[in-house]
Amino acid sequence: MKPVVHVFGAAGFAGAQLAALVDRHPGFRLGCITARADAGRRLVDVAPEHRVESLLSEPDVSAVSAGDFAAVCYPHAAASELVAELVDRGVRVVDVSADHRLTDPALYPEVYGFDHPRPDLLAEAVYGLPERYRDRIREARLVANPGCFPESSILALLPLRGRLADVVIDSKTGVSGAGRTPSDGVHFSNAADNVTAYKVYSHRHRPEIEQELGVEVTFTPHLVPVDRGLLSTCYARLPGGVPHPDDLRELYRHFYADHPFVEVVGQPPGMRAVQRTNFAQVCPLADPRGGRVTVFGVIDNLGKGAAGQALQNLNIMAGLDETAGLL
Amino acid sequence: MKPVVHVFGAAGFAGAQLAALVDRHPGFRLGCITARADAGRRLVDVAPEHRVESLLSEPDVSAVSAGDFAAVCYPHAAASELVAELVDRGVRVVDVSADHRLTDPALYPEVYGFDHPRPDLLAEAVYGLPERYRDRIREARLVANPGCFPESSILALLPLRGRLADVVIDSKTGVSGAGRTPSDGVHFSNAADNVTAYKVYSHRHRPEIEQELGVEVTFTPHLVPVDRGLLSTCYARLPGGVPHPDDLRELYRHFYADHPFVEVVGQPPGMRAVQRTNFAQVCPLADPRGGRVTVFGVIDNLGKGAAGQALQNLNIMAGLDETAGLL
Amino acid sequence: MKPVVHVFGAAGFAGAQLAALVDRHPGFRLGCITARADAGRRLVDVAPEHRVESLLSEPDVSAVSAGDFAAVCYPHAAASELVAELVDRGVRVVDVSADHRLTDPALYPEVYGFDHPRPDLLAEAVYGLPERYRDRIREARLVANPGCFPESSILALLPLRGRLADVVIDSKTGVSGAGRTPSDGVHFSNAADNVTAYKVYSHRHRPEIEQELGVEVTFTPHLVPVDRGLLSTCYARLPGGVPHPDDLRELYRHFYADHPFVEVVGQPPGMRAVQRTNFAQVCPLADPRGGRVTVFGVIDNLGKGAAGQALQNLNIMAGLDETAGLL
Amino acid sequence: MKPVVHVFGAAGFAGAQLAALVDRHPGFRLGCITARADAGRRLVDVAPEHRVESLLSEPDVSAVSAGDFAAVCYPHAAASELVAELVDRGVRVVDVSADHRLTDPALYPEVYGFDHPRPDLLAEAVYGLPERYRDRIREARLVANPGCFPESSILALLPLRGRLADVVIDSKTGVSGAGRTPSDGVHFSNAADNVTAYKVYSHRHRPEIEQELGVEVTFTPHLVPVDRGLLSTCYARLPGGVPHPDDLRELYRHFYADHPFVEVVGQPPGMRAVQRTNFAQVCPLADPRGGRVTVFGVIDNLGKGAAGQALQNLNIMAGLDETAGLL
Repeated sequence: MKPVVHVFGAAGFAGAQLAALVDRHPGFRLGCITARADAGRRLVDVAPEHRVESLLSEPDVSAVSAGDFAAVCYPHAAASELVAELVDRGVRVVDVSADHRLTDPALYPEVYGFDHPRPDLLAEAVYGLPERYRDRIREARLVANPGCFPESSILALLPLRGRLADVVIDSKTGVSGAGRTPSDGVHFSNAADNVTAYKVYSHRHRPEIEQELGVEVTFTPHLVPVDRGLLSTCYARLPGGVPHPDDLRELYRHFYADHPFVEVVGQPPGMRAVQRTNFAQVCPLADPRGGRVTVFGVIDNLGKGAAGQALQNLNIMAGLDETAGLL
Repeated sequence: MKPVVHVFGAAGFAGAQLAALVDRHPGFRLGCITARADAGRRLVDVAPEHRVESLLSEPDVSAVSAGDFAAVCYPHAAASELVAELVDRGVRVVDVSADHRLTDPALYPEVYGFDHPRPDLLAEAVYGLPERYRDRIREARLVANPGCFPESSILALLPLRGRLADVVIDSKTGVSGAGRTPSDGVHFSNAADNVTAYKVYSHRHRPEIEQELGVEVTFTPHLVPVDRGLLSTCYARLPGGVPHPDDLRELYRHFYADHPFVEVVGQPPGMRAVQRTNFAQVCPLADPRGGRVTVFGVIDNLGKGAAGQALQNLNIMAGLDETAGLL
Repeated sequence: MKPVVHVFGAAGFAGAQLAALVDRHPGFRLGCITARADAGRRLVDVAPEHRVESLLSEPDVSAVSAGDFAAVCYPHAAASELVAELVDRGVRVVDVSADHRLTDPALYPEVYGFDHPRPDLLAEAVYGLPERYRDRIREARLVANPGCFPESSILALLPLRGRLADVVIDSKTGVSGAGRTPSDGVHFSNAADNVTAYKVYSHRHRPEIEQELGVEVTFTPHLVPVDRGLLSTCYARLPGGVPHPDDLRELYRHFYADHPFVEVVGQPPGMRAVQRTNFAQVCPLADPRGGRVTVFGVIDNLGKGAAGQALQNLNIMAGLDETAGLL
Repeated sequence: MKPVVHVFGAAGFAGAQLAALVDRHPGFRLGCITARADAGRRLVDVAPEHRVESLLSEPDVSAVSAGDFAAVCYPHAAASELVAELVDRGVRVVDVSADHRLTDPALYPEVYGFDHPRPDLLAEAVYGLPERYRDRIREARLVANPGCFPESSILALLPLRGRLADVVIDSKTGVSGAGRTPSDGVHFSNAADNVTAYKVYSHRHRPEIEQELGVEVTFTPHLVPVDRGLLSTCYARLPGGVPHPDDLRELYRHFYADHPFVEVVGQPPGMRAVQRTNFAQVCPLADPRGGRVTVFGVIDNLGKGAAGQALQNLNIMAGLDETAGLL
């Protein structure tokens, strides 16, 4: 009997994508898919491109059994209560929201504007980056799926963790990263033919990046006229010395050798090579004038940056092939 | 003393564009610019690209003097009352809304969903297409600015008026035509990488086209991933015979010889040649198999399709050079 | 032992896509992939998004065995000789070029500018539209894969074949339809923010559409700023009478009931619902004023319009599940 | 008698734009416009959107008189000879190419791959940034128009010159910056839906930025799916201390108070506010954690980044209003 995955918040971009991935998955069965505002409609009517006929329902925890899996694709602050209830019922959860990414409860009021109701779950939650925490994800009751900006930039810099200084991360995200709700910012007549930075010095993903890289970073997100894709250009000094370019690339290749979704490439990668996949491409380049590196990390913000990463985590949690349903 | 032009509804795409055109105009002075929801803000804060520093105000008819000009850029049904009040005060008005385009009052309940309050003004209003009604516009108290789809398709077919049969108009509009209000349809993640038809057989611009061309038409609007631009591909049979291609072009050239904003071109025109201008380009082509023509008409939907056309009408009404402020 | 599929011309957009589909296919083995100008490079270096590591080689018919399958993705006029050689060696071929689509050899000089060298193969070739010719495709030695414009418009009108008059087909194609070779027309600075018609009255796909629909059509292709996607808006009179809208849709549903890749939908379909799939969506609408229909047909020009359709044909020819490798 | 401006290389994006600006200019007369490959065609046939009817001619220095002005819009390495010939004839020249931007002749072989033939002109040429060199431009015989990346980033950081350390410039340019020649990189199917870095550590504009800012910089250009626009996000440490945010903005406002085309704004500027203008917008932000600033500089790469800037320089050289023909 295939394990069941329930998707809470399946009408948003990430949730719908994840429901579709589960629906076509060889090793999972799609349980309930919920969406308060769209309950009673079929997912295919909300997101035709996914061709998932299942009905969206009101969220209902009692429909979920111990031993099931659940993914919670809610906005931040809205997920923590549901996640806690699910975990308490014996459901293994991937929280796609931001509500369990930061391990320090003291950061929640400042960064996310609410007091975290369950510091015990913060302490228990595993950050859902298999390239760092695969073994812990395997056993976890609760996995905190990374944010899209952190996913791209942590993967870009993780092999250099502990050696980094003066980190600047300049990120370019596709518009789908802003979610399905219409607004001035995502109006075609504003977003097309345009590039703009936003939330400079105040974006919520910065503390998450700093937590995982262990270093202070300057982070600037930009909105670019692309639907799906996220490129982070990461600049850093390496006070201990910059390896020869070949050695640098070799260091990355070795680091990611056992990670099926991270491709180390020799040329600055574009978004097209990873769109609609769960792949990340990283490209480390050494400044010929010495002392510095520039590392590019590119993902699909709804793939490795959200739904694909969530499914990869579910695969690991369920003991399935990590790549099942993702190639 | 330069005549004053007031712009009601100056926070929308067309209104803001028109206010900017008036603001830089050598022969007009910008009066009040109004926008209920944005009153108290400067226009430059709502629409930075126009660099108009004036404050938006609440609409206030008492600020307008007899002899002034006004343009009303309201949604349909919302304009008729204000327009009537202005005309009654001796203000000469260009109504950029749809509220005075159809001459038959009986059409309003069916097409626009309201009973027109002033059939007398419908009878008096001049359809604001200088290429057909320039002399009447010169003297008009009330000019009904054409819709964007009618503008492009009427200009394409006007030289063949009276000879047309089996007319099919397939139009492709940029997203700015849908207005500034955010919605699912104008969300970048829906509009980009996409083309879709909408309001098939039911778009409100069809009766307007039929009124001016005097023939029944099949009309299909499509949304294309472009900010500004509107291309209408117009198919028709000419039961009386199709002229030789050279004669057909010559007929168009002659027809539009005295019209400074209509360019007759020999190759199917793209949107780029007219974007951010008040020009229309039309290109009539004769089917070598006989009996039929295909005529392309392309405009900027906010230029010749809205604000530019309104200013051209204001120029004519004020006795100024028709092209003032538009080249 | 899985049957082998060789792809000739695998560096173009359609060929690369097809090679990738075959490479991941559960029932085929990818044979040689050829590309004269890129021989010696890996496909992944030419088209990174497909992640096919195989080396591109010079075309070499002697590497192909009787009983193998081959797809020829060459420009028109360049394919016929190779196709003939392959068929003569006992290889079963899908010709993705235009060289065997028209059954009348007399049309080749006029439409494609060359005398067809093998009228016998023209007579034998089966037009590769499973929705019309599935049974003949099953046994065919040579299948002529449809052009992208014909695919979308024939599927839109096929259920009404024999009843149609005054057909106008207004098509909007994504830029990938123009192929990989750089040119002014596909330069981002020309194609973006633009819509233009081209080859009015002279596009080579018109005779192909007329051959299959059995009626004269007026056909206008337009280039739209989309990478992948092709929407044909098809207008026709039905002199025998237009069914009630519900009956019309039911007629379509019944016609396509056994065709897994054609979806009959109730609202005008956008390109997004079919991008990167082998699906077509068709939407027949009846003019409430009578006598006419408007039918939309949308495909991915590289999917159902080229590589996906080719693989569907190969599946049928090989006796595999028609949907294998395509869902 | 209005002074004459000749434009050499008027078929490229920048040259055509400049010819159009001169053609409509109240104080200049357009002289010859040249384009080797398009000689004999009208400019309107090469670049319809500009509506310049003049014929393109072969370059011919003898058609230019002493006292005239000329702009040379050639690729780098191709301009120096013509520029020298013009200057030697008493023509005052704006070199829009890169051939006179670097003052150190020793850099030319390394950066541009040729030995500069006229080091005397390198020494004499004035860097065409009015915000730094207006007085010298006024008298100059030869002005070296800045590159587009330098224009945006130098304007962003110039008020902090002398205080900067650890400068990182992450630039995003529209595709028109790559010029009119078709290539794989500017193919719509590569450039759309994509963002990619290129020429990392090796772009030719870096030495130009370093020359003007007097500090080493890390510079990364990215191509974004926009036609026109260039945003540089500039990161720097200020070892001498970062002013309070209000003081920082005030410092910028004061610095640019007499420069009509630089707007200091309080929010990160998008490309839309400057597209098709000669304006630059800069926005300096201080890191609340101290020690660092992020400054945004945005221009239209063909406006303030090329043709607009060239016209501004011509206005200054000719003693005209600096903004003539540019508002």
